[in-house]
Amino acid sequence: MPKQVDHRERRETIARALWRVVAERGVAHLTLREVAQEAGISHGALQHYFSSREEMLSFAMDFASEQTSQRVGRRLAEFGARPHPRDVLRVMLTEMLPLHADARATSRMSAAYVLEALHDENVHARARGGLVEGRALVEKLVRQAIVDGHIRPDRDPVAETNLLLALTGLTPLIELDVITPREALAAVDQYLDRLFTGDEGSAGGKGE
Amino acid sequence: MPKQVDHRERRETIARALWRVVAERGVAHLTLREVAQEAGISHGALQHYFSSREEMLSFAMDFASEQTSQRVGRRLAEFGARPHPRDVLRVMLTEMLPLHADARATSRMSAAYVLEALHDENVHARARGGLVEGRALVEKLVRQAIVDGHIRPDRDPVAETNLLLALTGLTPLIELDVITPREALAAVDQYLDRLFTGDEGSAGGKGE
Repeated sequence: MPKQVDHRERRETIARALWRVVAERGVAHLTLREVAQEAGISHGALQHYFSSREEMLSFAMDFASEQTSQRVGRRLAEFGARPHPRDVLRVMLTEMLPLHADARATSRMSAAYVLEALHDENVHARARGGLVEGRALVEKLVRQAIVDGHIRPDRDPVAETNLLLALTGLTPLIELDVITPREALAAVDQYLDRLFTGDEGSAGGKGE
Repeated sequence: MPKQVDHRERRETIARALWRVVAERGVAHLTLREVAQEAGISHGALQHYFSSREEMLSFAMDFASEQTSQRVGRRLAEFGARPHPRDVLRVMLTEMLPLHADARATSRMSAAYVLEALHDENVHARARGGLVEGRALVEKLVRQAIVDGHIRPDRDPVAETNLLLALTGLTPLIELDVITPREALAAVDQYLDRLFTGDEGSAGGKGE
């Protein structure tokens, strides 16, 4: 189905154009017209792919999440068939932080999407769904790591999961050049070291 | 100088109108025209107070930081002349999270300001300055707590400071109703409990 593929490719080109508008010009410029211009297509052609600004935004966000998952998957492949939970968490967290161009684009898209969710019910529901799903994945990993003895059994899996996701709070510090990428990674590593206290199975910070 | 006071009051009214526009309609609507309408003044009158969108935004952000500091100050007054560093950090962190209406307004303003900073050099410099200042305050507090024996001496004050500020990363989870305010506070408390391990001098989570 070559036509189907073209359609998907075109939508992805549009999503990347949208990310650039968010990152370089700001959410205030995030209109169908500006995205069409950035993607190098006509306003009418854009409307062929997305009937509303919200639909376009949600596709761009889904595509951002998909790209992040793929980056995480590729990096985890280097750790063999059964990567240590510390390594999995480290890769997930560092790919969610704006530490390189691709991660920066998806991180900025994600921040803009949360702000959009505050005043749009549909965006709120979709953004919430994505975050609930991601959070469930991390909680499952934390619970398994407790069962497997990698994390101490007296740790509360719900609070630990929330604290791990909170590490994305390093984002404004990185984006505003308050801390360096190296300092951000050092903070993540110190955090994970303490979570996996006494556990020797992990490759630690050696992946970087 | 009653005229001076009026001027200040009017600017604060405008700043609050701007916060409402950000929270209820989104950054895409953040124009001088929309803020004037929300504040119930004419576009011309608004331009008397702010000559540009950026000037208006920066004032609104400064005012948000000021309001947050005042809330922190008022809550800390309840802890007596020399509050425990754990209590100081807990109050600072919880007032930065969107856990009640005022904190929600300033938190949303802050998130919007970071996004604006990505594509505006002047906003970037101002936002960075504010964050550097806030970060320095927290690092000073962490270093003093290590000297005073409240935090273990083997903790790295730079990484600990960055991790404390990262706790604001709970914000999207709270805003999108993925976790409850109670769960957010529980995560903050568990984090602080571990940072102040073995230290008995704090009022702990009893302030809430």
